Amino acid sequence: MQLDSSGLQVLSEQECFLLLSSVPIGRIVFTDRALPAVQPVNFCLDGRFIVIRTATGSKLAAATRHAVVAFEADEFDAAMRTGWSVTAVGHAREVSDAAELDRLARLPLTTWAPGNRDHYIVVEAEQISGRRIAAVTAGA
Amino acid sequence: MQLDSSGLQVLSEQECFLLLSSVPIGRIVFTDRALPAVQPVNFCLDGRFIVIRTATGSKLAAATRHAVVAFEADEFDAAMRTGWSVTAVGHAREVSDAAELDRLARLPLTTWAPGNRDHYIVVEAEQISGRRIAAVTAGA
Repeated sequence: MQLDSSGLQVLSEQECFLLLSSVPIGRIVFTDRALPAVQPVNFCLDGRFIVIRTATGSKLAAATRHAVVAFEADEFDAAMRTGWSVTAVGHAREVSDAAELDRLARLPLTTWAPGNRDHYIVVEAEQISGRRIAAVTAGA
Repeated sequence: MQLDSSGLQVLSEQECFLLLSSVPIGRIVFTDRALPAVQPVNFCLDGRFIVIRTATGSKLAAATRHAVVAFEADEFDAAMRTGWSVTAVGHAREVSDAAELDRLARLPLTTWAPGNRDHYIVVEAEQISGRRIAAVTAGA
């Protein structure tokens, strides 16, 4: 078990992808008018690709166009003070190819937010890393 | 009830602060070597200020020094497909004043991660906004 300088367990790439695929919501981190921005989104993992549905013309669609973004998901247990977090970093691109759109539309990706969301953003997890807080540390 | 262009409920500033104060973990969003970065942290609200404890010399401490950062917290219910998210944006500063450190040390702020974390970062919520997904939208 590898620990980082903060004493947190370092997750393997395989564990990171497995954990990412276990949750329905993550957070896309980008820059909006030169300020750091973050937005929770429903997503679906497609190999190394994080697939997000949004509305055409949304702020998210505009701000992530050709941008390098981060994508984070986590799960924490407040009672046990345990949890994990995974962060991927990579280029975001909008999907315009009809065959690819058709394929993505068949992924098990539902969005909780209302409205028409037929614009797809794909983020390639070029870098991925994760940490786990596993032990209950008394008095921490 | 105000809705945004995505059909999500817009939360008032008061609701945003109330919700922020109800959860133990949020995510600080910053830039690390020109790339977007995000890290979950335990935090405590102190008026309009988000108080975070980290280790001296940590990547987080270095990257957020004098930076404008975003801070996000949320809570989602996968079964109901409901939830809320709040994002604050503002300047981060490290606390070095002895009297302020003394005061912050008395806040009910515990960190789940192991190790010595006596370095305090304070983010002023200069802008704060929040959204809620309240309705179950059939077939969304």
